[in-house]
Amino acid sequence: MDSKTRQRIERFIAPYRVDDGRKFRLKHIDPADTGGLQSEAKADAATMLADSVAWLAEEQEKLYAQDKWAVLLIFQAMDAAGKDGTIKHVMTGVNPQGCHVTSFKAPTSMELDHDYLWRSIVALPERGRIGIHNRSWYEEVLVAKVHPEILARQKLPAGAVGKQIWKERYEDISAFERYLSRNGVAIRKFFLHVSKSEQKQRFLERIDDPAKNWKFAAGDVAERQHWDAYMEAYESMIRATSTPEAPWFVVPADNKWYTRLVVALAISDLMEGLDLQFPRLAAEQRETLKIARAQLMAESGKGR
Amino acid sequence: MDSKTRQRIERFIAPYRVDDGRKFRLKHIDPADTGGLQSEAKADAATMLADSVAWLAEEQEKLYAQDKWAVLLIFQAMDAAGKDGTIKHVMTGVNPQGCHVTSFKAPTSMELDHDYLWRSIVALPERGRIGIHNRSWYEEVLVAKVHPEILARQKLPAGAVGKQIWKERYEDISAFERYLSRNGVAIRKFFLHVSKSEQKQRFLERIDDPAKNWKFAAGDVAERQHWDAYMEAYESMIRATSTPEAPWFVVPADNKWYTRLVVALAISDLMEGLDLQFPRLAAEQRETLKIARAQLMAESGKGR
Repeated sequence: MDSKTRQRIERFIAPYRVDDGRKFRLKHIDPADTGGLQSEAKADAATMLADSVAWLAEEQEKLYAQDKWAVLLIFQAMDAAGKDGTIKHVMTGVNPQGCHVTSFKAPTSMELDHDYLWRSIVALPERGRIGIHNRSWYEEVLVAKVHPEILARQKLPAGAVGKQIWKERYEDISAFERYLSRNGVAIRKFFLHVSKSEQKQRFLERIDDPAKNWKFAAGDVAERQHWDAYMEAYESMIRATSTPEAPWFVVPADNKWYTRLVVALAISDLMEGLDLQFPRLAAEQRETLKIARAQLMAESGKGR
Repeated sequence: MDSKTRQRIERFIAPYRVDDGRKFRLKHIDPADTGGLQSEAKADAATMLADSVAWLAEEQEKLYAQDKWAVLLIFQAMDAAGKDGTIKHVMTGVNPQGCHVTSFKAPTSMELDHDYLWRSIVALPERGRIGIHNRSWYEEVLVAKVHPEILARQKLPAGAVGKQIWKERYEDISAFERYLSRNGVAIRKFFLHVSKSEQKQRFLERIDDPAKNWKFAAGDVAERQHWDAYMEAYESMIRATSTPEAPWFVVPADNKWYTRLVVALAISDLMEGLDLQFPRLAAEQRETLKIARAQLMAESGKGR
């Protein structure tokens, strides 16, 4: 990627990137924003997305060959904001051998017998891999905050749940992400920010189109009643857990084509920053290859 | 897929499919076989592969939506036979959210403290997913058979390693695969059959091309000295563990374009046999959707 392209991408994603959450307000991001692109630009956006995915596929091969960095991509959003579709459109084209998606549901009883980071840690990507967490440890400061009865089910000892619980969780998650980033895990976090009215439209589609019925759960409508509490939880979370090493991207999500483009470019920017290269051997290692070559050539020609 | 296409695919892959190993001999499969296709047919084969991958991507969505079957694809081969490349070319294009590749290396000390199926079982695909095991439990009757010192490192109690050890392992693995197939795991196993002389050429390429150096390990050449023992181990394994529910495909692997095509068509045939459909709701479930719809429409119009 040349430096002009890089700069253009960085300018494009800058409005959505939060490195320092202290001044962040959710109301500053319009879910319907398309970065000044009109809907006529959709075809161009699709081309840009395709280019970006093709480039990502190449970079992922280097990531895998180099076996040094791991990439962790976290997706959070309200229902129907487009997490699954974004993951599909941005990551399809990348070799599945180097890319592992984990979708987290309500914790199982075994998972509840562990600390809340545990199941995500087990699913962290190995070096050389891209790991995608579709929902993540952030559920613990989102759904658990909006529905405090979930906290009660976590079987925490008395005294572990105090007034500072959310502050403590933000701190613990941030500290753990800092630790990961110090150990070769490059992190990006995406909040796909959909509006309440757009969610309603998408729910209606899922209800009215028999082929989409399976995507709809009746409980999804009830959850909308907590919309404001969720938005507050997202805002607090982003304010408290955005860091330069593990920034949040708050991505407008009322237009799927735009969401996908922003996410693809943010991941491209991350990969470019890792300066990935196919490994080159040192002189002494090349010596070993020479010996192997000589051995191969000296074999009696039985082959087959 | 129409029934003519299905039949054509079945005829195409039939020579490589082993449902009953008793008559199987490795020498009946020529690693250089291209099924009568000349190298001029490579462009056509590439088109067929692309069509097959696109079709697979669609079927995988149904598999995921239906959430009933899991698909387990096992790949075994000598070094440089093309496992990684085949997985890349056949599975890239499938949504990574529904496809998980696990590459097994030499077991860790934690893994050695478990029975030999354990680490593979932990990595089995969930319902609705395609799981690819790049190497598998079959290493335990291949490398462990060729290098009996590996058996010694497995810390088995005295008496557990007797003369019947390989027969017992074939039996145990087959019984476990039978169990899986009875519980909704559809299994296909691929042995990419490369010739010794083609392996030599590919090693030389990895040695001579600096961009490919990282794929080469010096030990790979030494392992060639055990070629005949490996071929014997593969033959015995395929004879003993081929079943209609978990057949081996012995895929000619001297021509990468042909290997990929055979593997893609064998997977397509498997998926077609599962008769995958997007779930349709029953009448009473549709009633729930009506209620949800009414709730949504009754919301006061505050929007977001």
